[in-house]
Amino acid sequence: MSDQALPPVAVPPCGIIGILGGGQLGRMLALAAAEMGLNCHIYCPDPKSPAFDVVSRSTCADYDDETALAAFSRDVDAVTFEFENVPPDTVDFLSSQLPVRPGGKALRITQDRLKEKRFIESLGRSCAPFMAVDSLDDLIRGVKRLSYPAILKTRRFGYDGKGQVMLHEGDDPALAFAAIGEAPAIVEGFVPFAKEISALVARGRDGRIALYDIAENHHENHILRVSRVPAAIEPSTREAALEIARHAVERLDYVGVLAIEFFVLEEEAKERLVINEFAPRVHNSGHWTQDGCAVSQFAQHIRAVAGWPLARPVRLADVEMTNLIGDEVNGWRTLALEPAAVVHFYAKAESREGRKMGHINRLTTLSRSRR
Amino acid sequence: MSDQALPPVAVPPCGIIGILGGGQLGRMLALAAAEMGLNCHIYCPDPKSPAFDVVSRSTCADYDDETALAAFSRDVDAVTFEFENVPPDTVDFLSSQLPVRPGGKALRITQDRLKEKRFIESLGRSCAPFMAVDSLDDLIRGVKRLSYPAILKTRRFGYDGKGQVMLHEGDDPALAFAAIGEAPAIVEGFVPFAKEISALVARGRDGRIALYDIAENHHENHILRVSRVPAAIEPSTREAALEIARHAVERLDYVGVLAIEFFVLEEEAKERLVINEFAPRVHNSGHWTQDGCAVSQFAQHIRAVAGWPLARPVRLADVEMTNLIGDEVNGWRTLALEPAAVVHFYAKAESREGRKMGHINRLTTLSRSRR
Repeated sequence: MSDQALPPVAVPPCGIIGILGGGQLGRMLALAAAEMGLNCHIYCPDPKSPAFDVVSRSTCADYDDETALAAFSRDVDAVTFEFENVPPDTVDFLSSQLPVRPGGKALRITQDRLKEKRFIESLGRSCAPFMAVDSLDDLIRGVKRLSYPAILKTRRFGYDGKGQVMLHEGDDPALAFAAIGEAPAIVEGFVPFAKEISALVARGRDGRIALYDIAENHHENHILRVSRVPAAIEPSTREAALEIARHAVERLDYVGVLAIEFFVLEEEAKERLVINEFAPRVHNSGHWTQDGCAVSQFAQHIRAVAGWPLARPVRLADVEMTNLIGDEVNGWRTLALEPAAVVHFYAKAESREGRKMGHINRLTTLSRSRR
Repeated sequence: MSDQALPPVAVPPCGIIGILGGGQLGRMLALAAAEMGLNCHIYCPDPKSPAFDVVSRSTCADYDDETALAAFSRDVDAVTFEFENVPPDTVDFLSSQLPVRPGGKALRITQDRLKEKRFIESLGRSCAPFMAVDSLDDLIRGVKRLSYPAILKTRRFGYDGKGQVMLHEGDDPALAFAAIGEAPAIVEGFVPFAKEISALVARGRDGRIALYDIAENHHENHILRVSRVPAAIEPSTREAALEIARHAVERLDYVGVLAIEFFVLEEEAKERLVINEFAPRVHNSGHWTQDGCAVSQFAQHIRAVAGWPLARPVRLADVEMTNLIGDEVNGWRTLALEPAAVVHFYAKAESREGRKMGHINRLTTLSRSRR
């Protein structure tokens, strides 16, 4: 039974949304749902998941545990996920029982860097130059054609720089291929970008689209450090990014929030967009919407998943979102003292190096726009 | 061990806040705490409490169950409550184990209309004229002195018009006294008010005070219907209400959010304030802060309870908050469509007449102020 075949009935207040994944995104989705009178059931194999603490319904089981999945599907009215690496079989199993949004199509494309690249090309848009890598020979040919530096990326299961190896002139391709476990991969040519930005778009069950303002992103050690809204980009670049976002969700027949990361290149004093990747879910670069927008990305995603109309994502302030990584969360006393800042902590018991522990939204100026 | 005797250590992220009471206020407190990385344990005797759905830790037991209370106190780092009718013995029991905020002093005063009246007088402020009623004779003497119409109110356990009887000329005082079960009471003279307003104030563990903007309230059938911010009152009335709020929390050595309801009288074209009552907790007339303010009353209360510094309650918009009562929640589809409105539903399974099922915050204009 595909989502389209289901009766167009929304999940009403008191309904139950199932969420696959129990990290901070699942936690914040559950909190946003609860504000709307929807309760959540978190499904996650890790017993220490911070999302478990904000729901009374939870399942701690593997994603291939069909008994647990069947019980989960009977308890909930619709399902979504907080990460894109959900096993396709899990989604297929659940989709046979109830709506899973955004569905398998978006997952299949965004879980696989090669399919994602081909999807970008099918949109008529630019991505970084790439070649598929199924063998060491492919890699050697790839770097020859794309030239150095190049980046070898596994087709699947990459995030925050994981599953990636940079290849400089003189590096041994065999070592790089071994470093990613000789997994199916792509090799990408380096894009000399001036800026990184991201678009955040939501599409409802009714096909309506809500576009958030564009964020400018700064990474450190492959992890998002700061997102600023508005992004310091040309108006035409902004429009182009929004247009790509609109086009992408329509082509994917998408229901929910989608993030698109872009590189901005400066060529002859003009900006040009190159699509880096898609995330079929709420996204770290959209956390500013919690305090700077009339509707957060989390509430908007839940609206879409529950089949509710989308809300207008009016921006109320300029915002700088900063991730709190590892031990930085220990500075919470000082952070909590800042007057125009809102702190968000994820209640993770252990602060490991490189682990996202919270974020802070600094409202830098308030918008003068009126609705 | 009094709160003051405890080491001045705040509850850090990952700490546990205990909440007595499981209604919508407890639910919204737990959601606000979760955003700050604090998890909550809800204690409530009613198994259908909507706050149970947003926490993984809960106790369903009576407030005088010392075994359950002892286990609860061992699981949490600090305790607060979402309603003022917590049995004093419960608070005393818990206070011997850990901080309970706002403490017993505020509860003892606000739980008893007579003590509350005397507290107001001790502040040098006006309340409605009143007399204590311990017998039918007291009541007869009272209405003679205060004249009709008068209102007979039980000293304890009143809310949303419950425990109140209006006495008009010719009514039989004996019937009125019987209607409130001949409970200890007060009789109040009628106050010919032009408006009702409320102040919302927070005081931190460090003694700092945060004052929210004043709300103007409209009741129907003794239940709050609409709160509007800003209130249409004279600037001097606003200042007077804020000053009373500041004075009250200092005198009560209060930690947390407190609401004060006022009548505004118009006398010779001048406004005069009469204090109606105090609520030692987050308050329905403060729900506008969720979407119209940099920090909601729920987040602010949790900050105080956890010993964190308070946040600045900067108002971002003009807001009209409307309660959704009884069946009105069935209009959720239409409400969810409104462009500049944020819906809040409480996930109560049963919508009884007069029951608060949710509220909607309509952002009418955005403030131009900057922080």
